[in-house]
Amino acid sequence: MPDQVRVALIGAGRIGQRHAATLASAIPGAELAVIADVHGPSATTLVDKVRCPRWTDDPRAVLEDANIDAIVIASSTDSHAPLIVAAAEAGKQIFCEKPIALDLEATDRALDAVERAGVRLQMGFQRRFDKAYHAAKELIDAGALGHIEAIRDTMRDPSPAPRAYLETSGGLYRDMTIHNFDCVRWMMGQEVNQIFAMGSALVSPVFRELRDIDTSVISLRFSDDSLGVIDNSRRSGFGYDVRTEIFGSEGALMIGYSRDTPMLRLDANGIHSDHIHWFLERFDQAYIDELKVFVDGIIDGTPPPVDGYDARAAMVLAYAAEASLRENAPVSPSRFARTVGEG
Amino acid sequence: MPDQVRVALIGAGRIGQRHAATLASAIPGAELAVIADVHGPSATTLVDKVRCPRWTDDPRAVLEDANIDAIVIASSTDSHAPLIVAAAEAGKQIFCEKPIALDLEATDRALDAVERAGVRLQMGFQRRFDKAYHAAKELIDAGALGHIEAIRDTMRDPSPAPRAYLETSGGLYRDMTIHNFDCVRWMMGQEVNQIFAMGSALVSPVFRELRDIDTSVISLRFSDDSLGVIDNSRRSGFGYDVRTEIFGSEGALMIGYSRDTPMLRLDANGIHSDHIHWFLERFDQAYIDELKVFVDGIIDGTPPPVDGYDARAAMVLAYAAEASLRENAPVSPSRFARTVGEG
Amino acid sequence: MPDQVRVALIGAGRIGQRHAATLASAIPGAELAVIADVHGPSATTLVDKVRCPRWTDDPRAVLEDANIDAIVIASSTDSHAPLIVAAAEAGKQIFCEKPIALDLEATDRALDAVERAGVRLQMGFQRRFDKAYHAAKELIDAGALGHIEAIRDTMRDPSPAPRAYLETSGGLYRDMTIHNFDCVRWMMGQEVNQIFAMGSALVSPVFRELRDIDTSVISLRFSDDSLGVIDNSRRSGFGYDVRTEIFGSEGALMIGYSRDTPMLRLDANGIHSDHIHWFLERFDQAYIDELKVFVDGIIDGTPPPVDGYDARAAMVLAYAAEASLRENAPVSPSRFARTVGEG
Amino acid sequence: MPDQVRVALIGAGRIGQRHAATLASAIPGAELAVIADVHGPSATTLVDKVRCPRWTDDPRAVLEDANIDAIVIASSTDSHAPLIVAAAEAGKQIFCEKPIALDLEATDRALDAVERAGVRLQMGFQRRFDKAYHAAKELIDAGALGHIEAIRDTMRDPSPAPRAYLETSGGLYRDMTIHNFDCVRWMMGQEVNQIFAMGSALVSPVFRELRDIDTSVISLRFSDDSLGVIDNSRRSGFGYDVRTEIFGSEGALMIGYSRDTPMLRLDANGIHSDHIHWFLERFDQAYIDELKVFVDGIIDGTPPPVDGYDARAAMVLAYAAEASLRENAPVSPSRFARTVGEG
Repeated sequence: MPDQVRVALIGAGRIGQRHAATLASAIPGAELAVIADVHGPSATTLVDKVRCPRWTDDPRAVLEDANIDAIVIASSTDSHAPLIVAAAEAGKQIFCEKPIALDLEATDRALDAVERAGVRLQMGFQRRFDKAYHAAKELIDAGALGHIEAIRDTMRDPSPAPRAYLETSGGLYRDMTIHNFDCVRWMMGQEVNQIFAMGSALVSPVFRELRDIDTSVISLRFSDDSLGVIDNSRRSGFGYDVRTEIFGSEGALMIGYSRDTPMLRLDANGIHSDHIHWFLERFDQAYIDELKVFVDGIIDGTPPPVDGYDARAAMVLAYAAEASLRENAPVSPSRFARTVGEG
Repeated sequence: MPDQVRVALIGAGRIGQRHAATLASAIPGAELAVIADVHGPSATTLVDKVRCPRWTDDPRAVLEDANIDAIVIASSTDSHAPLIVAAAEAGKQIFCEKPIALDLEATDRALDAVERAGVRLQMGFQRRFDKAYHAAKELIDAGALGHIEAIRDTMRDPSPAPRAYLETSGGLYRDMTIHNFDCVRWMMGQEVNQIFAMGSALVSPVFRELRDIDTSVISLRFSDDSLGVIDNSRRSGFGYDVRTEIFGSEGALMIGYSRDTPMLRLDANGIHSDHIHWFLERFDQAYIDELKVFVDGIIDGTPPPVDGYDARAAMVLAYAAEASLRENAPVSPSRFARTVGEG
Repeated sequence: MPDQVRVALIGAGRIGQRHAATLASAIPGAELAVIADVHGPSATTLVDKVRCPRWTDDPRAVLEDANIDAIVIASSTDSHAPLIVAAAEAGKQIFCEKPIALDLEATDRALDAVERAGVRLQMGFQRRFDKAYHAAKELIDAGALGHIEAIRDTMRDPSPAPRAYLETSGGLYRDMTIHNFDCVRWMMGQEVNQIFAMGSALVSPVFRELRDIDTSVISLRFSDDSLGVIDNSRRSGFGYDVRTEIFGSEGALMIGYSRDTPMLRLDANGIHSDHIHWFLERFDQAYIDELKVFVDGIIDGTPPPVDGYDARAAMVLAYAAEASLRENAPVSPSRFARTVGEG
Repeated sequence: MPDQVRVALIGAGRIGQRHAATLASAIPGAELAVIADVHGPSATTLVDKVRCPRWTDDPRAVLEDANIDAIVIASSTDSHAPLIVAAAEAGKQIFCEKPIALDLEATDRALDAVERAGVRLQMGFQRRFDKAYHAAKELIDAGALGHIEAIRDTMRDPSPAPRAYLETSGGLYRDMTIHNFDCVRWMMGQEVNQIFAMGSALVSPVFRELRDIDTSVISLRFSDDSLGVIDNSRRSGFGYDVRTEIFGSEGALMIGYSRDTPMLRLDANGIHSDHIHWFLERFDQAYIDELKVFVDGIIDGTPPPVDGYDARAAMVLAYAAEASLRENAPVSPSRFARTVGEG
């Protein structure tokens, strides 16, 4: 195994820029060798900013480069699955932003390619690398809460993404709730047996026009009959809202964040503080740590803590939630289980 | 209207004792004239403690006493509806602990009696008189949150009640969640169009034996398509847990309580505080204020802020939740609407 | 010893009204027998409100009433010492609002009378009966903080009292800081060896006119060389501010209060809550509990937890702080120690 | 002015390592050209870690290098003043960790050299670059608190530094309280007219042996008669404690930090969270931002927000506090004012 990992970054957009800064400087074992973006100027701007030696507007080219050990896929969603397949075939280690694809068929083709090639695929579910979520998972696994009985997972964006983003997002469940689906599976250490979804379009007429929803509550039954609930909104009215509560026989954990700046202001109207605004602030360190884990894993062989099968499982829950919404009935995610040999 | 209300208290158990203390001293317009309990010794002990002049072991007797203006019913649940009917026929003003009855038929007979007699019936949903819930409702009604889109309402008891209590409690939804049902109707200012319930017996084998559940999540769709979720447990592992969050287009409210004593302890393990333990602590002042509002309303004619129809509506939601649980399907509460002339 | 204590309340002003409500109903062992106020109408209004059987405009008269076991002195400060002397001579048990007197000479005469008569004198330093302060003191005494090294005690009123009150208040240190002086002595379990005071008149020209100060910081050295600081203001700008921090070798305690209503409001400007406004809200339960302890002590013989010598010691610190301010130098409170036989 | 600043870092210890990481990657306008440390292996290890092209064990050598625009001094305290003088004479822009020197004479010599050379000298008082302190200062300057009347500034280290460090630290006031001295001057926007210090050695016998103190409270009078208090300890018992409160006529600000991980744990003993442990965690971002401001200032000409005169003023307050402690009397810092032509 290498002691220095040469990484190609594909995608120089918002999240690509975040990863470029990390790969360029924050990870001792990583060397950011090239940045690829089909929109050349985005790539050139970014290589200048992070002092990366090389750029290209042909993402496929970097896969043919024998000097590249690993790729970080931060390009548009529709390119994820094809790039995974090509990278796997080229024997590259892969880090990919969620989701693999917006449909299970493409997801499965990518998983097959990864499995055939024997490369690693780590998915960018950043919550798993957050200090608070991580500490919570360790306490749960250590039995500190006794027997886990329920989970409440909430997520609200500060305001809806632009229409152009929403049009190709895959809808609320595949785009946003996918983070909650991964989170509850991980925290509970179990699969979901039944799901019931209610959704509404309340935030903006755009969601109704796109036959999408912007507000949702989802009930979950896990395999041991413990229960869960996920609630989402595309607009919080007060900033970025990500909180998770886990309840056990011996106690509970409440993960969340509220204040951004550690300062209170007191006046005749009461006590005031600010509130965290954006996921890049909330998960700032997690975005660094997920890449550290990826690179360290390549060097020392530790398997990725969240892989393509986790991504598929979260997408299955999105499918099941959509089916529940459509049918107005509880749905078993097993309906979307992979048939052997189907891939 | 009277400027002094002579009150008879029926029931000298835990909540009766609480109300006796309030009626004996905390409400200028109230005079606690008599305490009735079928278990005589409970009544005699309580009259001594609060210096009430009279007691009886015959609750019906106080209804025949022309000097009594109002009764406060804090006896066992099965006695509520018959006492309401008898008190209404005797022309008394009525305060009754929840529920009116564990079934809608008895509830409706009581409501009919109250309506025929033209007396007031105020129900003991104490959250409505809590300072925080009250302030929240005022902000919502004043439009401070913009358009309301979602509500999350949680309630966990510190530990399960004894089996004897549970056996006649009516089950989780009629006994405990009934508070949440009233709360979400009140906060949202709307009726529930659809309900889906998931429940499990995880806390203790007793619940399974009683064919009851101890853990539940409920999804709710309101008449304007806003959404809600209620989660409950008969055991929290950390004290009494009552929290409600309301989300609107312009902001959110989070009602809750955690610390009991205003003291933090810091040591090498971190920061520690205590947690509120019991509903009588959490809603201490609300139990006083609900009786103040009841007595003041008799004096000045203001209608009760929470009446028998609210109690019926909450019970309908319990029925609907039970049906949803039984049928594993979403249920419309309209199924349990009252047919005209049925009462 | 009696199993029922007949109490006379002297003084029907703000704090007298508070105590009347408690004595009339909240303490099983107490019977509020009479209310005295030199302003007769105040007394008559209050007896009506709390249903006390008797009133008088002659406070001395109640001392001659053999049926009275105890008196609660809540009249104007200048009447405290003479009433204590007279009550002691009449063999009554005494609860007195702080201070005994605004000068040490009158204080000492009252202490002598109490000692000669062998009656109890409990002082109304209500913090000692607050749940948080009480819990803190127990943790300190149990060694939970290790060796105590420092204390920070802060107190700010929401806004200055009226000029008429300030004129006879005795100034910041004898009127307000007296609570902090008692608190730090009690918490630290030690006497103060040295005090240095800085004060300014910043809040209102009235203080300058009265040759008083409204803002102060005081440094304290305790007998074992641990250190303390007290800071005060007659005006907080945001409500009532009472917080105390104690630091030990093994950890710290932070006593305080901020939010009044357990509700957060979140909007685009951040997170907002209210703040507690007034000492009667903050110490609501402590005002009840101090009288419970007083009455229970009369019944069971437990000595008062805060007595006249504590009141004198706090007043000595006020004297020392004033001397420090005048002399712009550190002062030893021993300068104001009582000479044997002086009283 | 340059659009890229070539920086030499002097000192590869704990804080030097922190600055190296920042200079190597986090500031677009900075290029970390060389790392110097008299202990060569420290320098070589660090250049490898941050991929800096060059190292030396002769700090003076980098001052002769015409390619270097600026130096960051993070070496031992006794080297600060001589390096400032030499760097100024070489025309380099200077960032220096606090203090300039442990005595005012050496401080003044350094200030003179900087003034003669016309270079910039920015001091590493990192609180000034913390988001919370910065926001507080802006609110104060904008008048949001009305007239400022008092400040409380507290600082406790988790545990005492090793004896070797303490021996050359300059003592509590020059080493630790110096941060508070700078903070209160900055926040209040005024000079201190009078200071009174109390100190004790309670934490460890080492402090007594070194004739140093470990626990202190300091009272401050500012030029407009507003008041302040600083309290310090070399050992908190619970982590790193830095909190500041500012009180004005219209409200107050409370700056502080407690929880590290945004997670609460609730169990039968109450509510628990962790506590921030170390100044490098608390001021993580401030250590980055102070260097950004330094580098940006070199590029765009903005003067340093905290310069050598601020460092001198803070040291004067340390001198005055020591004099007060020695003399057990309040001291005017003007005693240590610089005489014209003295430097």
